[in-house]
Amino acid sequence: MKLVSTLEDLRQHRQALANPLGFVPTMGFLHEGHLSLVRAAKAACPSVAVSIFVNPTQFGPTEDLAAYPRDLEHDLALLEAEGVDLVWAPTPEVMYPAGYQTWVEVTDVTQFLEGKMRPGHFKGVTTVVAKLFNAVQPQHAFFGQKDAQQAVVITRMVQDLNMPVELHICPIVREPDGLAMSSRNTYLSPAERQAALVLSRSLQTARAAFEQGQRNADALRQTVLSVLAAEPLARVQYVSCADPSTLAEQSGVISQTLISMAVYVGKTRLIDNIILQ
Amino acid sequence: MKLVSTLEDLRQHRQALANPLGFVPTMGFLHEGHLSLVRAAKAACPSVAVSIFVNPTQFGPTEDLAAYPRDLEHDLALLEAEGVDLVWAPTPEVMYPAGYQTWVEVTDVTQFLEGKMRPGHFKGVTTVVAKLFNAVQPQHAFFGQKDAQQAVVITRMVQDLNMPVELHICPIVREPDGLAMSSRNTYLSPAERQAALVLSRSLQTARAAFEQGQRNADALRQTVLSVLAAEPLARVQYVSCADPSTLAEQSGVISQTLISMAVYVGKTRLIDNIILQ
Repeated sequence: MKLVSTLEDLRQHRQALANPLGFVPTMGFLHEGHLSLVRAAKAACPSVAVSIFVNPTQFGPTEDLAAYPRDLEHDLALLEAEGVDLVWAPTPEVMYPAGYQTWVEVTDVTQFLEGKMRPGHFKGVTTVVAKLFNAVQPQHAFFGQKDAQQAVVITRMVQDLNMPVELHICPIVREPDGLAMSSRNTYLSPAERQAALVLSRSLQTARAAFEQGQRNADALRQTVLSVLAAEPLARVQYVSCADPSTLAEQSGVISQTLISMAVYVGKTRLIDNIILQ
Repeated sequence: MKLVSTLEDLRQHRQALANPLGFVPTMGFLHEGHLSLVRAAKAACPSVAVSIFVNPTQFGPTEDLAAYPRDLEHDLALLEAEGVDLVWAPTPEVMYPAGYQTWVEVTDVTQFLEGKMRPGHFKGVTTVVAKLFNAVQPQHAFFGQKDAQQAVVITRMVQDLNMPVELHICPIVREPDGLAMSSRNTYLSPAERQAALVLSRSLQTARAAFEQGQRNADALRQTVLSVLAAEPLARVQYVSCADPSTLAEQSGVISQTLISMAVYVGKTRLIDNIILQ
């Protein structure tokens, strides 16, 4: 496994990789969710590249950029064990040198959910993903359904900008007790870690209602909110039932829905989601 | 020479072309300026693709989108004669289908000159060029120095977004009497065509002053304005002496300068420029 930092080194070593290349962009501090993407890439492609970059432009001024967990050595050991061919870990100066001034923006599907709560977040995400794709030139790229809106936004960008890459959106990986894997789970105290189970539990309650025939978006949203309200350590930022393609909020009878949420558990902001159809 | 319209046909036929591929994006109604780009591409690359697309998103609401001259048959004959391999002439619906919502924007160097006079123009330009590059996947792309700011903006976009394409900015091609070639020259009446010579004449006067040692940006600007003022059919929109890299307006002593202008001759808006160094 080759580790590179500069764009020049990346380009040189990427040349030597067999096509089609599978690519997994990450912010590091890797967990089983990331590794499931790497394994999907390994299964689909003769060579696999991973990027590790905590992208400053997708963090708001009051968000956790400085505190975001990092452990490059451990990440590299995990990726080596998975048989990854190339890891690109650029510095912020490589990605955003002095004079940097170009941005990629998806306008409509970014207006809802995370985009509404985190202004500028998706502009940072689409810009860095466009840069990563152009630099790495993968034929396949792998993202997690955990960031449901991100998956929709990137899919839209790739389609709109005619990017020559096939996207694979892979299922959420959960701890045995249901908590969705996230690098930010490391922020949780033991009590908060236990309380955080309320997110997945609320989604399972909605799934059960849906499977028993509940097709009213407002009722499903209320079901989730009721479960979350019972957890004193949890503070809801939003719970949404949205069209899985447009992300427009739904009301009344629906046939399919993306239920998603952002919930503070203590000071840690967690997200989770499920698609019911 | 193959002519394609859809993205699928483009991708299929592009696959068959030898690399490196040279690419010349155009809005059609081709003249010797465009053909000089095609010849530069032919000289540098074993295969050459040209796009013909009058991009609606780079025209302002009061600009000449509907009137912009078009002659696909003549364009194809010219490109065939130059030995072009592939022509992509997409429809607006291929480029901007319903639901389209992704934009590429360069923020700083677009604030001046054409970007100031034509709000949104460069957002349309950078978006369509990003799309064209992603779809055609050239290793080399050829642009004219006639659109001096466009060259700076695209260069910035390619660098910032790590696009895997090498840009070639080719010299302005002029009529024997000095008028810079432009598809919009077709708008000019015979009297306006004669009056339009004042643009290149004013730049030649500035060049002569520079060669005789004039290094004051304000004096050079005034020299150009004086020549333009003597032509009754010409109405100046702007004359600029700017840093060739940042496009920031210059004042006082300079060592190099991009002198550029937009001038209405009758109802036709013409641009021209020269780099003095």
